[in-house]
Parts: sequence; C-alpha cells; structure tokens
Amino acid sequence: MQGLRERQKQRRRERILRTAVELFKERGFQQTTAVDIAKASHVSRGTFFNYYPYKEAVLLDYGAELLELAWGEAKAALERGVPPVEVLEAFWNRLAELSERELGRELLSHLAYELVNPDPERAHAAYEALPLAQFVAEILRPLARAGRLRTDLSLDRMANSIADAFLLAVLRWAGHTPDRSLAGELQKFLTIVLEGVLARP
Amino acid sequence: MQGLRERQKQRRRERILRTAVELFKERGFQQTTAVDIAKASHVSRGTFFNYYPYKEAVLLDYGAELLELAWGEAKAALERGVPPVEVLEAFWNRLAELSERELGRELLSHLAYELVNPDPERAHAAYEALPLAQFVAEILRPLARAGRLRTDLSLDRMANSIADAFLLAVLRWAGHTPDRSLAGELQKFLTIVLEGVLARP
Repeated sequence: MQGLRERQKQRRRERILRTAVELFKERGFQQTTAVDIAKASHVSRGTFFNYYPYKEAVLLDYGAELLELAWGEAKAALERGVPPVEVLEAFWNRLAELSERELGRELLSHLAYELVNPDPERAHAAYEALPLAQFVAEILRPLARAGRLRTDLSLDRMANSIADAFLLAVLRWAGHTPDRSLAGELQKFLTIVLEGVLARP
Repeated sequence: MQGLRERQKQRRRERILRTAVELFKERGFQQTTAVDIAKASHVSRGTFFNYYPYKEAVLLDYGAELLELAWGEAKAALERGVPPVEVLEAFWNRLAELSERELGRELLSHLAYELVNPDPERAHAAYEALPLAQFVAEILRPLARAGRLRTDLSLDRMANSIADAFLLAVLRWAGHTPDRSLAGELQKFLTIVLEGVLARP
C-alpha cells in the first residue's frame, strides 16, 4: 500500500503539473518562470525544483500522460486484432491530434527539443519519459513475427527510425510549417519510412 | 568584375572563418567567445558581428564549404553515369567522413542544432546555408524520370525526408552514440528511408 507521505507527494506533483500547464498555455512557455509556477501552486521555489529540476521537465510529465493515453488505445486495438500498420497510423493520428490540441506549437516544440537536447542527461531524461520507440516496437512486433518486416535490420533499429521520423516531423512542423496540419505531415513521413522511396518492382 | 572593396570584404570574412574554426577546434565551441575570435583575427567585436550575427553562423559557413565539396563530387559522379542510388550512398559516406574529420561531435552537434533551432529566422538561415535537400533532389531526379521512385509523393517531399533522416542521424550520433561510427548510422537510416521497413513481397 502507498503510504500517506507518498500520496501527498503525488498529489502535490499533480497540482504543480496542472498549474504549470495552465500557466504555459495562458502566458506562453518562455514567459512563465519557475517562481510563477511555484507561487500559483502554493509551494516554495525550492519545492518546485525538488519535483522538477527544470521547467521543461514539467512538459515531459505532461507529454508522457498524452503518450500513455494514445498508447492505451493502440494496445487495445492490437488486442482486438486490428492490423498493426493500421494501429500505427491511428496511433500517429491520435498523437498528432493530442499534440495540436493539448500542447500546441510552442509547448510541442519545447517538448520535442528536449529529445535532441545537446546535454546528454536532459536528452536521456526525455527518452525515459517518452518511450515512443518502445511503443512503436510493440506495434510492429506482430509484423516481425509474421515475417512482414525486412530482416536485415533489428526491430529496435526500425522502431527507433520510425520514432525519429516522428520527432523530426514534429520539430519541423512546430517551427516552420504554419500552414499545414501535423497529422498530414506525420502521415507522409510515416509512409516513407514504412514503404521507402523506391518504387516496388 | 569584383571591386577592390568586395575582395577585401571577402578576404576578411575568410580570415575570420579560418581563425574561428581553429579556435573552436582548439578550445571547444562553448569556450570560444566572439571577442576571442575578433581578437585572434585582428578585427573589432563589431566587425565580427557584421560578418557573423552569431557564433553558430561561422559554423554554417564552414558546413556549407564541406557540403559543397561533397556535392561537387556527387555531381561529377552523376555526370559520369554512376547509378543515383550509389551516388547518394557515396555522398552520405563522404559527408559522414568530412563531418567526423573536419567538424567532430561538438561542432557537428551545434551545426545540426541550427537546423532545428526554435527561432525560425535562425533555422531558415541554416537551411539557406545547407541546402542538403536540394542536392538530394538533384541526385534522385534521374530516378524520378526513369519511374523508379514512388509517384504518390513529390520529389521534393521525398528529398526533404531523406535530408531530415540525415539530420536526425547526425543529431543522434553527435549527442548520444559515442561508440558507433557516423557513416554506419547514416547508412542504416538511409536504407530505411529508401527501401522502407516493410518486406517487399
């Protein structure tokens, strides 16, 4: 059983998270300081940093929630016997939808940026929080078993590349293609990684 | 004819570039300030910023030189009739080699980072300086003409995705895979984008 103290910590973390996300959306990420978040969630600055060593870590927690939500649906679809390529496409679309609606360009760009942070510790923390490649590998595993994936590369390598393609489409979209939908951009990149660029003979 | 003034400007820019690259390699990129570069290349701090509005802009110039070098070789190979997929692979390998030898992880990571800079103006400047996607499109064009590329996506879209895959492999390598060679990582990602992940029937 979870102790009282543990539950209190969990509730406080949750409160800081919700408050921070609200402030980010109201004022913008850059304009919101750790002090603003601490004040609005009734904790000290020091307490805030105990829970989140940097502001972007809040985003990682929030992104992890959204990713878990989409993954839960994908897993259920796999269990119902939906073909993996369809599950992957639906997973992509769901992530695009959640990203556009719950995060928006600014938060999404800071979140995706953490995954390519030049500081290896920060990038590692982002990978731990957002195990997209692992979920992709789970979705592809039935295809691998059925011999429907190429066999000269490992499943993990392919899953990593697909997750990387997702990440790049997001970085590109968040920064530089204001007129297109994220779902559309992601879909095209996914198709390329799945099927390649060379025509099938 | 280029005027004297133009030539002088060109020579000064060249001197700043060489000096800066030397300092970056000696002391590290983070440890080298604009003032260090200005001093070592005998110009004022203001003059340095006239040529390069930020330190990373020097890297863009240097990266552009290396890219031009690799592209010149690729173009010559295309003209000699080498098959485009081979040219693309050789181009990749050459870029990997130049990146490892002339830039190294630290400079390469700062250079690649510019292409995903959240500041759209900086990212745009990086794209102008490093038109990798355009070169990839040139290499693929003969394949498109010969009907050997898929036709449901534009050549530019495919070239962009290939260039993006390059960029991500570089970001990943520069930051987080100390034990692997860049050429090997790039080759695997290229294969996936060219041929896809699904087995060919």
